[in-house]
Amino acid sequence: MSSTQVHSSTQQAQYQAIDTPFLYVNKPVFINNLNQLRNKIEGLGANLRPHFKTLRSLEAAELLLPSKDSPVTVSTVKEAEALASAGYKDIVYAVGIADTKLPRIASMLTQGINVRVLLDSIEQAHQLNNFCETHGCSISALIELDCDGHRGGIAPEDDKLLEIAELLTDGAASFNGVLTHAGESYQCFDKQQLIDAAQNEVAAAVKAAERIRAANMVCDIVSIGSTPTAQSYQNLEGITEVRAGVYTFFDLVMAGLNVCQLSDIAASVVTSVIGHNADKNWIFVDAGWMALSGDRGTAEQPKDCGYGLVCDENGQVLSGLQVITVNQEHGIIQAVDGSPICLEEFPVGSRLHILPNHACATASMHAQYHVFDTDNDDYEIWNRVQGW
Amino acid sequence: MSSTQVHSSTQQAQYQAIDTPFLYVNKPVFINNLNQLRNKIEGLGANLRPHFKTLRSLEAAELLLPSKDSPVTVSTVKEAEALASAGYKDIVYAVGIADTKLPRIASMLTQGINVRVLLDSIEQAHQLNNFCETHGCSISALIELDCDGHRGGIAPEDDKLLEIAELLTDGAASFNGVLTHAGESYQCFDKQQLIDAAQNEVAAAVKAAERIRAANMVCDIVSIGSTPTAQSYQNLEGITEVRAGVYTFFDLVMAGLNVCQLSDIAASVVTSVIGHNADKNWIFVDAGWMALSGDRGTAEQPKDCGYGLVCDENGQVLSGLQVITVNQEHGIIQAVDGSPICLEEFPVGSRLHILPNHACATASMHAQYHVFDTDNDDYEIWNRVQGW
Repeated sequence: MSSTQVHSSTQQAQYQAIDTPFLYVNKPVFINNLNQLRNKIEGLGANLRPHFKTLRSLEAAELLLPSKDSPVTVSTVKEAEALASAGYKDIVYAVGIADTKLPRIASMLTQGINVRVLLDSIEQAHQLNNFCETHGCSISALIELDCDGHRGGIAPEDDKLLEIAELLTDGAASFNGVLTHAGESYQCFDKQQLIDAAQNEVAAAVKAAERIRAANMVCDIVSIGSTPTAQSYQNLEGITEVRAGVYTFFDLVMAGLNVCQLSDIAASVVTSVIGHNADKNWIFVDAGWMALSGDRGTAEQPKDCGYGLVCDENGQVLSGLQVITVNQEHGIIQAVDGSPICLEEFPVGSRLHILPNHACATASMHAQYHVFDTDNDDYEIWNRVQGW
Repeated sequence: MSSTQVHSSTQQAQYQAIDTPFLYVNKPVFINNLNQLRNKIEGLGANLRPHFKTLRSLEAAELLLPSKDSPVTVSTVKEAEALASAGYKDIVYAVGIADTKLPRIASMLTQGINVRVLLDSIEQAHQLNNFCETHGCSISALIELDCDGHRGGIAPEDDKLLEIAELLTDGAASFNGVLTHAGESYQCFDKQQLIDAAQNEVAAAVKAAERIRAANMVCDIVSIGSTPTAQSYQNLEGITEVRAGVYTFFDLVMAGLNVCQLSDIAASVVTSVIGHNADKNWIFVDAGWMALSGDRGTAEQPKDCGYGLVCDENGQVLSGLQVITVNQEHGIIQAVDGSPICLEEFPVGSRLHILPNHACATASMHAQYHVFDTDNDDYEIWNRVQGW
């Protein structure tokens, strides 16, 4: 969170009028995050296809995406439908497709929205071809590549890659290209490891595209991305687009990977003190897992941040304090080293900000975001698209 | 989940028409859970004050609460407001109160809704008295007791108990009684431990009430409860009411404590297979932490259920399978012992049900519940009250 989070008296009144817990967005920090990555990726000659799954807000999309033709990534059909309803036309649904979801994809196609799907098996390619043949449509698909053994996808050197590309190219569906995600980059705790993961992601995608083209098929899209690698690319030759999502808000997991600073974290949960346990040196707050999420993404990092680091109302990190326990609507704050806290400095009703471990998870707990623009003395509410 | 979950052809069509992932409620199992605990507690001579935080649905409240005068517990002001808007009149907001939340409580009082608040400090008692004096109202409060060192509250033998009760009794606010929650009962893995925790909860509350009455103050409400202890009370003499929430849906954490059977779990997440990793014997499904929550409540139990146990479409547990990893919209299912899975039995597009670790957390991820009554060939949607 910005260390310059100072509200005007109007904003201060707006801020105090919102009952806690709520998700606070520091808009200048958010916009800076958007600009930094867009400039970097476009500077390297590729398109940015931001992942909508972190924000899931159409108000946020107006800042995230320069135009209605801007490429965007989604993780649910519902996100695609929301973006389509707002006129966005170039969408990749980057989760493996099941044929049961194809009617909703086809419906968007008839509205002139290009929603590409993702698959990594001959079974799915047959399902897609069959659906397109039966329904007289042509849905475009990308093949998911496995660049680091993280989850699904096909290895670039696997012959199934060509087999699936051919099935799609020759069938009723369309083949559009390849996509990979360096999921293992979340385990890279030094700069060189991250650079290596980024280069590996590029190399895997380029190799797959070259094999496909060598087999006389078109491979228009070569898509890579994860927030850690997106910060670490040095050369994007052969890559058409980069996907990333969490860079928009950033979070403690990303700070733990040194891909951002704490001051780059644009989202925090505002919470009120609701009690103390003087014997245990605990502060109780009204942000439990309902407000923070139960995400423990920093648990396996060198610096474990519990359920979140604690800031004062001005966004200053209160060194040494963490949310150590969460229940549904209770959080417990303690000094990490067990040292005494001056509980009088945290009276019942006073406010704190909690920096999230994982911005996607924390944002998902909130139907609305409260967005403060300290540069322009502006306050607005962004609504989150919910469901699947 | 009930082993008798068999849908009529009409229900089957309704079930298939809902896109995955979604929260499925087996209504006969749910109603049985409600009846079992109500009969037990009322049979022991106390009132049941169910906790609304698990369900947060007004449609569910019609089954949970016999009448608009039935006592109910909430964990947020928003839940209280939703219940008040539906005419429920006897509400306890069982999370420590901060004075910033009092205007909304006072507003409900003026509508004839009795919303009692909870506190455990002299600071809060002064805040409440001051608010009531300033605003010319009389909000009733319960004092939170600490019966097992779990979180907050005052020990029954602490003289602060009497001091706070006097402050409230003599001040502009009202004093209504005491409340405790045996949070440590979630760690009781044998029956005798649970019975002991239940008796301890009773004893702590009764002792506090007796001390207050001995000091010539009225103590109308003596409230205890947690789902594990609620199943284990044997004598409720001196107790006026019992609170519990997760017993409505039950879950794997409760099954791990032997306070329910797997067949008592009324809520599950329906998910579709979206891919496989044959090398790793993984099934990918479209239920990630967005649908399941990231709750790992069984991690510290004798039987760790990962992110959930796996059932087929008929609700039969598929022995040995678990969701081992979740990302935002991906879950990975694997055999716990690493043995091979016949992946052909799980084609892309086929459906599975995932039993939740923690029903409160899983339900919180869904804005709607899809409720199937196989006994009456009925299907309905329940809406979840969201926010704070």
